[in-house]
Amino acid sequence: MEIAGIRDMLQAVQNGSMAIDAAMEQLRHLPYEDLGYAKIDHHRAMRTGFPEVIYCEGKTIAQIQGILTAMMGRGNRNILGTRAALEVYEAVRGMAPDVVYHELARVIVFHRQPIEIHTNGYICVATGGTADLPVAEEAAITAETLGNRVERLYDVGVAGIHRLLSNLDTLCGANVVIAVAGMEGALASVVAGLVERPVLAVPTSVGYGANFGGLSALLTMLNSCASGVSVLNIDNGFGAGFQAATINRLTAKEP
Amino acid sequence: MEIAGIRDMLQAVQNGSMAIDAAMEQLRHLPYEDLGYAKIDHHRAMRTGFPEVIYCEGKTIAQIQGILTAMMGRGNRNILGTRAALEVYEAVRGMAPDVVYHELARVIVFHRQPIEIHTNGYICVATGGTADLPVAEEAAITAETLGNRVERLYDVGVAGIHRLLSNLDTLCGANVVIAVAGMEGALASVVAGLVERPVLAVPTSVGYGANFGGLSALLTMLNSCASGVSVLNIDNGFGAGFQAATINRLTAKEP
Amino acid sequence: MEIAGIRDMLQAVQNGSMAIDAAMEQLRHLPYEDLGYAKIDHHRAMRTGFPEVIYCEGKTIAQIQGILTAMMGRGNRNILGTRAALEVYEAVRGMAPDVVYHELARVIVFHRQPIEIHTNGYICVATGGTADLPVAEEAAITAETLGNRVERLYDVGVAGIHRLLSNLDTLCGANVVIAVAGMEGALASVVAGLVERPVLAVPTSVGYGANFGGLSALLTMLNSCASGVSVLNIDNGFGAGFQAATINRLTAKEP
Amino acid sequence: MEIAGIRDMLQAVQNGSMAIDAAMEQLRHLPYEDLGYAKIDHHRAMRTGFPEVIYCEGKTIAQIQGILTAMMGRGNRNILGTRAALEVYEAVRGMAPDVVYHELARVIVFHRQPIEIHTNGYICVATGGTADLPVAEEAAITAETLGNRVERLYDVGVAGIHRLLSNLDTLCGANVVIAVAGMEGALASVVAGLVERPVLAVPTSVGYGANFGGLSALLTMLNSCASGVSVLNIDNGFGAGFQAATINRLTAKEP
Amino acid sequence: MEIAGIRDMLQAVQNGSMAIDAAMEQLRHLPYEDLGYAKIDHHRAMRTGFPEVIYCEGKTIAQIQGILTAMMGRGNRNILGTRAALEVYEAVRGMAPDVVYHELARVIVFHRQPIEIHTNGYICVATGGTADLPVAEEAAITAETLGNRVERLYDVGVAGIHRLLSNLDTLCGANVVIAVAGMEGALASVVAGLVERPVLAVPTSVGYGANFGGLSALLTMLNSCASGVSVLNIDNGFGAGFQAATINRLTAKEP
Amino acid sequence: MEIAGIRDMLQAVQNGSMAIDAAMEQLRHLPYEDLGYAKIDHHRAMRTGFPEVIYCEGKTIAQIQGILTAMMGRGNRNILGTRAALEVYEAVRGMAPDVVYHELARVIVFHRQPIEIHTNGYICVATGGTADLPVAEEAAITAETLGNRVERLYDVGVAGIHRLLSNLDTLCGANVVIAVAGMEGALASVVAGLVERPVLAVPTSVGYGANFGGLSALLTMLNSCASGVSVLNIDNGFGAGFQAATINRLTAKEP
Amino acid sequence: MEIAGIRDMLQAVQNGSMAIDAAMEQLRHLPYEDLGYAKIDHHRAMRTGFPEVIYCEGKTIAQIQGILTAMMGRGNRNILGTRAALEVYEAVRGMAPDVVYHELARVIVFHRQPIEIHTNGYICVATGGTADLPVAEEAAITAETLGNRVERLYDVGVAGIHRLLSNLDTLCGANVVIAVAGMEGALASVVAGLVERPVLAVPTSVGYGANFGGLSALLTMLNSCASGVSVLNIDNGFGAGFQAATINRLTAKEP
Amino acid sequence: MEIAGIRDMLQAVQNGSMAIDAAMEQLRHLPYEDLGYAKIDHHRAMRTGFPEVIYCEGKTIAQIQGILTAMMGRGNRNILGTRAALEVYEAVRGMAPDVVYHELARVIVFHRQPIEIHTNGYICVATGGTADLPVAEEAAITAETLGNRVERLYDVGVAGIHRLLSNLDTLCGANVVIAVAGMEGALASVVAGLVERPVLAVPTSVGYGANFGGLSALLTMLNSCASGVSVLNIDNGFGAGFQAATINRLTAKEP
Repeated sequence: MEIAGIRDMLQAVQNGSMAIDAAMEQLRHLPYEDLGYAKIDHHRAMRTGFPEVIYCEGKTIAQIQGILTAMMGRGNRNILGTRAALEVYEAVRGMAPDVVYHELARVIVFHRQPIEIHTNGYICVATGGTADLPVAEEAAITAETLGNRVERLYDVGVAGIHRLLSNLDTLCGANVVIAVAGMEGALASVVAGLVERPVLAVPTSVGYGANFGGLSALLTMLNSCASGVSVLNIDNGFGAGFQAATINRLTAKEP
Repeated sequence: MEIAGIRDMLQAVQNGSMAIDAAMEQLRHLPYEDLGYAKIDHHRAMRTGFPEVIYCEGKTIAQIQGILTAMMGRGNRNILGTRAALEVYEAVRGMAPDVVYHELARVIVFHRQPIEIHTNGYICVATGGTADLPVAEEAAITAETLGNRVERLYDVGVAGIHRLLSNLDTLCGANVVIAVAGMEGALASVVAGLVERPVLAVPTSVGYGANFGGLSALLTMLNSCASGVSVLNIDNGFGAGFQAATINRLTAKEP
Repeated sequence: MEIAGIRDMLQAVQNGSMAIDAAMEQLRHLPYEDLGYAKIDHHRAMRTGFPEVIYCEGKTIAQIQGILTAMMGRGNRNILGTRAALEVYEAVRGMAPDVVYHELARVIVFHRQPIEIHTNGYICVATGGTADLPVAEEAAITAETLGNRVERLYDVGVAGIHRLLSNLDTLCGANVVIAVAGMEGALASVVAGLVERPVLAVPTSVGYGANFGGLSALLTMLNSCASGVSVLNIDNGFGAGFQAATINRLTAKEP
Repeated sequence: MEIAGIRDMLQAVQNGSMAIDAAMEQLRHLPYEDLGYAKIDHHRAMRTGFPEVIYCEGKTIAQIQGILTAMMGRGNRNILGTRAALEVYEAVRGMAPDVVYHELARVIVFHRQPIEIHTNGYICVATGGTADLPVAEEAAITAETLGNRVERLYDVGVAGIHRLLSNLDTLCGANVVIAVAGMEGALASVVAGLVERPVLAVPTSVGYGANFGGLSALLTMLNSCASGVSVLNIDNGFGAGFQAATINRLTAKEP
Repeated sequence: MEIAGIRDMLQAVQNGSMAIDAAMEQLRHLPYEDLGYAKIDHHRAMRTGFPEVIYCEGKTIAQIQGILTAMMGRGNRNILGTRAALEVYEAVRGMAPDVVYHELARVIVFHRQPIEIHTNGYICVATGGTADLPVAEEAAITAETLGNRVERLYDVGVAGIHRLLSNLDTLCGANVVIAVAGMEGALASVVAGLVERPVLAVPTSVGYGANFGGLSALLTMLNSCASGVSVLNIDNGFGAGFQAATINRLTAKEP
Repeated sequence: MEIAGIRDMLQAVQNGSMAIDAAMEQLRHLPYEDLGYAKIDHHRAMRTGFPEVIYCEGKTIAQIQGILTAMMGRGNRNILGTRAALEVYEAVRGMAPDVVYHELARVIVFHRQPIEIHTNGYICVATGGTADLPVAEEAAITAETLGNRVERLYDVGVAGIHRLLSNLDTLCGANVVIAVAGMEGALASVVAGLVERPVLAVPTSVGYGANFGGLSALLTMLNSCASGVSVLNIDNGFGAGFQAATINRLTAKEP
Repeated sequence: MEIAGIRDMLQAVQNGSMAIDAAMEQLRHLPYEDLGYAKIDHHRAMRTGFPEVIYCEGKTIAQIQGILTAMMGRGNRNILGTRAALEVYEAVRGMAPDVVYHELARVIVFHRQPIEIHTNGYICVATGGTADLPVAEEAAITAETLGNRVERLYDVGVAGIHRLLSNLDTLCGANVVIAVAGMEGALASVVAGLVERPVLAVPTSVGYGANFGGLSALLTMLNSCASGVSVLNIDNGFGAGFQAATINRLTAKEP
Repeated sequence: MEIAGIRDMLQAVQNGSMAIDAAMEQLRHLPYEDLGYAKIDHHRAMRTGFPEVIYCEGKTIAQIQGILTAMMGRGNRNILGTRAALEVYEAVRGMAPDVVYHELARVIVFHRQPIEIHTNGYICVATGGTADLPVAEEAAITAETLGNRVERLYDVGVAGIHRLLSNLDTLCGANVVIAVAGMEGALASVVAGLVERPVLAVPTSVGYGANFGGLSALLTMLNSCASGVSVLNIDNGFGAGFQAATINRLTAKEP
């Protein structure tokens, strides 16, 4: 509830152009759309210029379809569906003309307008291993759909440090680096020691035994002795892509 | 074992209307019915006026049928079956004329007498997201079956605080609020800061990674900096509905 | 921010009795007092009729004194200081005429008006052992200061169940029962099986070894097989007293 | 390696009836039979008079069959197969004339000689709920197969304490009590407060959410404030039955 | 509350030798003594012939003195004070003529009658290392005060297995073995593989790092692959001594 | 080791202006200074224009003094000492003319050149409560010393949401928001739902019981349902200030 | 990136035999081969003489085939595929003439040159039980494929210590011992107390309940009171085989 | 109990040079010396040629002195006292002529014969930071006292990877590398990717917050994606030094 919006409403009430009950009604209905099982917040996407987002896990297909219909009825923003199983894609692919499913990343993109790149720089997504690709791709596609250029640098884990060191140009040239790693998750620390830009660390659940479902990599990243690292939830590629886009947007402040 | 009950029995023994062995027998057999694998406590439901309850998980279908038969042989209270898979419903639907299965909530209700509402106020069930609905519905249906009016307020999580703020009337008018949330579970604290009535917080296992099966929301709710919050087990919608009904019954003390 | 309050303000703006900037200012400054390091919310205490509360742990003595001064400058509500070490009491005892320190409970009460009892019923505070008394007393004194009658039932742990059973009158007669227990924390389940009123379970850190600082009792209480139990944080006597008072206030709804 | 056995061997060596190499060989091969993937210890069963035992989980069917063949080639002790899935039973049922499968307990018993009861007293197996029966039955059948009389007392959890109290005769008359409970696991403490005999507490994984796979009941039992309780691993019915038998055998010391 | 006791009381009521109110009063006051902060259960000690026990940790010195006074006013049983710091001993040493403080074990014994040994066998207390002695001594002194002969076998940890093997006579001759070990806690499994009597395993908090305050040894003992092991809480020497005495008493059943 | 630096060195080797052994020596000694117990990396501070930083915890005073001497011998950058106890400050205050100790934040700043602000925007540091101030101040002073303007917004926790909502101007106007909160740590989610800029969440160890030393707030923040949140280690105010400065520097890319 | 390699390159640059850009290119491309989703490090295998290794879990079959093709295009080293499901084997078996699948160990070996044994001594792989065989075989086959002689000693857990003691010759004669055990994992400590060579401890996830997926055995091994033990991840047979081979290679230093 | 030793004894018994009871006595008393509270194993030190070792933590000063006296009465091996506080050193410094206390490492060395170096190679001890020095020095001094040459490489953590890379000669030239690191503990993985020798990883408790007392570094090291790493307990410098010496001794197999 942006304070400016309240001020506008107060002015409308003061100058008589809006009744009090209407203002009360406004407060209740304007900023989102109520489907009963979901309350869709069109407001945020409108302000940021970012696409609308649906986190599909834990929702029934009928609920997802309902939310999509509501979103498509409001403007023509692109829509990003994350954690979407194949059957979700199959149930919604017919709902718009240009729908792309990124299977590895489990992401559906409803392209309803061209994606515009507003920044000069790029976001670099690096992984420790090959098995981290699904999370990395979720991050990369999210960042791309939110209007960023992305460079991928996969399988550059610290056990063979030369693979990382021989790609310093790509790494150091980025505005933001997303470091995705499972097992011991040491990639983030090493990367943060090499670059001078913000590093977003994404632990993955890749590994077994004492990785405890990603806890190992998570703790590694939280305890990084390198400065300039902040951490996302385990396997949260979307969150990393979104935060990277939010940071990168700062470089394009005055359009 | 209500002290009053013992006193009655002692009086019966004293005035000779009950033999000692009969009293011993009473103590052993009166308050419950022994099926070998289960000892059904009709007593409690009788005293509280609440329905009989069967927690179905971990019981075989034959055991559930046996317990139902025993319950139906004693009076005509309604019966609530919780954590009931579809196959349980299918195995018992023929055992009574009016059996309703709430699939999302995994609850079976055996309607054997009309549900009466004894209180003026209502219980509000709020959720952080759409994926919390199964737990919320378990709470709501439990509270309704125990004789309460319920208002639902779904998908009002703290990430879009205006969705919650524009429903303050519903929230603040309730006698008890049940706040159901997964992921970070912050809903309970925000709600408890807004209302002046008891808040029952139900963490859900919704989420992934560092939510550790609901631990994250559980700890959030236990550590709430807002006063007036007490917490149920992860995903324990039934417990929340029952506790809310127990609290709300206080408002109807002198019938 | 109560919706009613917004409506009143909107009306004042509409009928010209309040300028827009004043309304904006209201929104910003009315509901609390800003000390820089603390923002005191007089609002809530005003609405509920409950005393003001200061959680002293982690605050410097100068900060506590500053908050007290601000609170005493606003009306004459009683003030409750919780988690207050002896040196805190000694630093503030001269700030008001009638200040009582409950050492076992680590609670300071600034009596500035007589405590009124608005309800017929009482709250029962029970403990498993003698070592649980500090937490139980924090609960009891909180509930008393918030205007409730309290009955204490200490050292009635489940290892000697007859101690509990021979006090069923006190237990079953209460509007709310607070069950305080450390070690295995089984008291709450047994109590909830005996009474028909809401039970608030408070795990304590009493014990050693595999009690893991209270985790053992906490998990026991969360997993209670008895209905009608909700749980507070480990050692959170204040929270239990406050929630019990909030529930008990429901019985005095129409004054 | 019993010291007496070494002494016998030393005497045989001293008096020339055993060569040194034979003694070395003895040490290496006598006390067990080596199948490569398993080394079967016939020794222990011989000394204790208990049946041979196979823990089936994690073994292939071929391995189980091999171990059974080796066991049956040595004397005619009864054989107990625990954690045996139905397909294990089906694969071995033809290997002996009198093989019984206890499906709930997942236990196979190869009856090759009559079970003799050597003690006067009995072991009582009690459970908190109906869902604890598989673990309880594993304990009961183990104890019975090891030559004990067993009394079952099922579904006497603490939430309805009168169900337990009205069975005090059975409970207090036992030589050893096995208390099996999931969820909050409070049964063991209450039982140990009532009886004067050793209580073996078996936490089960029954429950959900913050029971964390049985951790809740385990911690409860370890932290029991009642004396006379020792604890088994989660769901370890076999271990409880065996330990109870070992304890009960003490009552039959001088046959 | 023994069922026999209730029967006696019922007979007294029936034959008129006891009034109903007196019976009610009995139920309430007979089995324990109420000090407000503590409810002393003289009953149990009376039935078992064991001494009275005070767990001193978490009690104030005044509370301990009050409990002692009450206990000494009832018969002349010995009294055992566990987890007693030196200052507790100094505060109570003058309260009886023959008071002994076992500093290493932190145990106070009030000798008020000679300790009688009722069994032929002995209890063996073994430790993995020297640092486990405080817990072992708590177990040993408890068992001795409860009327048992105890053999100590200290510093026989598995890292030098010959130290254990050369003491097999002592180990195998015991009725019950208490295995006390910190760090990896493997002693219990090895001992249980060697003896044919019940083994009580006591994990200690001895160690550092990944011992997590005794969790390591606790898990080791719970997961023992040897049969005949049950486990006590971390550092719970008293509990082990008490359970061993309870088991050993079975050998002296018919006095 | 910046790839550009290697290229420069390769060119010097190729054109003969640098001998191979000198290049090898370079590689070994140039980028840091070796004190034996510490290897100081002047390189990074040089490239970023940020001050030198010493993490004081776990270092002896002599080590800290040695590191300071080495740093002061190289140029005149400002120096930041974090996690510095009062005695550290007292031991080093004489080593430079302008040394300031921020006691609450435990930070020492050696001012050796004026701090320049290179960006237009500001960083907002918000806390849930008063007890979070030490961590918040560590973040704020770090960010200020690294050349940023900082706005403080303290004690705006979610239990009194109006305190936060009435400061939306300050919150929404920032380039980066640092949300510092203990207990349930819900502040970060609510803030991230309100602002459109990157939020850095810092869990604190403030609280007790089931906060498990900050774990509760940490999990809350990692599981935030709001997008645009990344998380620092518990109590890591420095890391948040540094990451915020790194992000904010992006807005001043072309100087 | 071996320092010698850099020196060689520097010399080539200095004497003009290599252009700077070529050197830069070298640094970037020489040590590994980039497949996009994987960067294969042929370098390490070349230096150590060990086979190439593919960890198959988490990789798609297409990715594994791509990596294999790349590896087979470079020299004729043997290739080891670990954590390979049967379908992986079936997808790659046709890619080389001599491919062996060890089903129990889930290991594929591509024999492309004879395995040579370079050391005199052998590695002993011991297990606590039969269910530990899959992990033990992964270790054994890894060590064999890396050129070592292996002796297997299976099912010698500490619950029947004589099975271990009667195999002391095999155990004490090894250069390195790998101790594989689940449940309580005590094998490593006992073995390390008996042998004078390095012991590599591998906890397995074998067990149930409070083994918490192998945590129990892991903690046991980390806390071993015996010297000469270091620990691998839970179920990490490959890691143990590799480390054992690395240690054993020290005995063959001067070929 | 070495099998060879048993054979010798058997021969002595066979040829009549040893009586059976003497052999029994041998078995019981020869391999260690019994002080009651400790059983000293001179045997192991004798066989390995390593010094005697006393772990001082948890032992009283009188116990340590008693053990030292017993050790000094048997031959003239050097003696290593680990985890020795300053007061332990002060209590024992007079017990031998040449006693050195390494305060940082908390190690006492009783030099009773010159330390001989039997191997050509050296052990490299590397740390991530300065605060890891106490653990690293415990490892280094242990390895030196056990007859090894040690190279120290301190403060080469991964956040400034060039500090490590410019010391590759020292690192790669070692027979064994001990990698000591706290916080995220990534050093071990990076080192193991660079060297071809066994790496022993020692997590330290250095750090705060989510390092959970060293758990973070421990999990990192256990989950290392680099081969050739095995792990010690948190802060276990002694264990690492001992294991490194055991491994390095393999290089000197034929003296």
